[in-house]
Amino acid sequence: MDLKRRGNQTMVFANPPLILSSYTVVGPKEGDGPLGKTFSKVFKDQIHGEKSWEVAESIMLQEAMQGALDQAGIPKEEIDFMLAGDLLNQLISSNFAARQMDLPFIGLYGACSTMALSMAVGSMLIDGGFARNVLVGVSSHHEAAERQFRFPTEQGTQRAMCAQWTVTGAGSLLLGKSGTGPRITSATIGRVLDFDVNDVNNMGAAMAPAVSDTILNHLQDLQRKPQDYDLIASGDLGMVGLALAGDLLKKSGVEMGEGFTDCGVLIYDSSQDVHSGGSGCGCSSVVFAGNILQRIKAGELNRVLLVGSGALHSSTSMLQGESIPGIGHAVVIEA
Amino acid sequence: MDLKRRGNQTMVFANPPLILSSYTVVGPKEGDGPLGKTFSKVFKDQIHGEKSWEVAESIMLQEAMQGALDQAGIPKEEIDFMLAGDLLNQLISSNFAARQMDLPFIGLYGACSTMALSMAVGSMLIDGGFARNVLVGVSSHHEAAERQFRFPTEQGTQRAMCAQWTVTGAGSLLLGKSGTGPRITSATIGRVLDFDVNDVNNMGAAMAPAVSDTILNHLQDLQRKPQDYDLIASGDLGMVGLALAGDLLKKSGVEMGEGFTDCGVLIYDSSQDVHSGGSGCGCSSVVFAGNILQRIKAGELNRVLLVGSGALHSSTSMLQGESIPGIGHAVVIEA
Repeated sequence: MDLKRRGNQTMVFANPPLILSSYTVVGPKEGDGPLGKTFSKVFKDQIHGEKSWEVAESIMLQEAMQGALDQAGIPKEEIDFMLAGDLLNQLISSNFAARQMDLPFIGLYGACSTMALSMAVGSMLIDGGFARNVLVGVSSHHEAAERQFRFPTEQGTQRAMCAQWTVTGAGSLLLGKSGTGPRITSATIGRVLDFDVNDVNNMGAAMAPAVSDTILNHLQDLQRKPQDYDLIASGDLGMVGLALAGDLLKKSGVEMGEGFTDCGVLIYDSSQDVHSGGSGCGCSSVVFAGNILQRIKAGELNRVLLVGSGALHSSTSMLQGESIPGIGHAVVIEA
Repeated sequence: MDLKRRGNQTMVFANPPLILSSYTVVGPKEGDGPLGKTFSKVFKDQIHGEKSWEVAESIMLQEAMQGALDQAGIPKEEIDFMLAGDLLNQLISSNFAARQMDLPFIGLYGACSTMALSMAVGSMLIDGGFARNVLVGVSSHHEAAERQFRFPTEQGTQRAMCAQWTVTGAGSLLLGKSGTGPRITSATIGRVLDFDVNDVNNMGAAMAPAVSDTILNHLQDLQRKPQDYDLIASGDLGMVGLALAGDLLKKSGVEMGEGFTDCGVLIYDSSQDVHSGGSGCGCSSVVFAGNILQRIKAGELNRVLLVGSGALHSSTSMLQGESIPGIGHAVVIEA
């Protein structure tokens, strides 16, 4: 199967929405990693005094969204939509966070691509004239996700070397029509691609084709090359998926070069025993809303392409022997 | 707890998107019901020759979306987005349908409110200038949903009298910028409300507050009264929830009158042993894309308010003793 050009898949915003504020909350393992100092808040343990991992995740998302709101100092009455998503069945963390936030709520599901997807949809709502400000937030939780998709972590099942480690974290951004901050200048909504990967421990391989397809179409739509970006960060292919995406794009005539990395590769270091890197929709949300955004604001990065990557499986589909389709959504952020 | 006015929750479209075509696929029980003749296609049995209920649901959604496309005769290259959602974990039916449709895909989750939500978001994308045509589709499947949320139907568990029957059905609409058809003139995105209902067999009670809140805010935003609509259809409160919503609105000073009904009340008749009526996001999608749309086109209804209603629970949240928050999203359709 080859990647193919669709055309007309990228929206360029006439009045690019601004990122007015951001806030990130992570678990202790993420706090101990190389990006630890870039996060707004680190929970002392995975359960944060709550009665379940799932409730802890929802509280984490709520704290991230409230944190972004507080940082911007914009009253709730001027926030027109809340967009959120997570990995849990029926987006339960997002629904419970939305109950507390009391804002008009649109639930999005793109698996680990949800941060880029919500930034894209939020930008369309603002640039389209339907919102002054949109609050976006995305979360995942290691224990809650692992027991839902694979095995309870208490079971101590041995992890494959190509497996990724689901990040415990929630990131939130406040997008707005006016103010100051980096701008979201364009977005590419991806298609679902399936290269027949059926190993639930190899998400990187399942997502690499869709991410590559979205990057290829994005570059062709805008007549750009990878070197037009200071950073292209997928989120989250891990080390295995990142290498595969590089190879797939090379076959299609695109040399990604040094500036191509992955949020799942950045968030942990090799001493943390995470094998192929981080994953979970919290991963790209906290790496983008933390480290990458700070580097844009500091003038270190001028133009960034964030490509969210989602593996579209459920525990039911895996037990029924289905393969794992993937999706990639891209957004361009400029200083 | 009282309903309260937020303000500024409704978008009025400057160039109202058109409903260019529609297609519905349902199971045999829905085909035998009072609206049987209004559906495009009726499956002979619940599994449609597939290996699982879940695969049958995905095929049903795919057939509905392809059906809407074929009816409009618009080439795939001119469809800029596919928006879809369902009740299954990780939107698996929609993801697998999107894999076949090969269109830029945005996954939405609003439980049973997903049809109205996708019509609202699709309309914003078109009116905002980001799409020429948007294909929306929403599905549910009785056996797939019941075994995920409650009990496998093979178990024969006795159903409560306030329980609703999850509809097996998929409805699809092609929304467009130009052509002919009824128009979507405004949309109200709802907030998550929780009145502390925790009975998974009483979805109507869980959703009634959020639906009432959305109707109240919609009417106040547009300075309208219920009598300005030929039909206000919630989807899907069932008989219990419909009565509760009428009471809640009355307490807030709004008399809904004769024109207030519910897609879950319309789809089955009392001989079909469904207790409080139909539910599942397939319900409002096939009742709207079938019967209601046909009555608008026939000139019988001039202005309709469709209020999708979602119960935001998961099997995990129920086992953990959480209550069930609800959400309501409204769209106005005019001849």
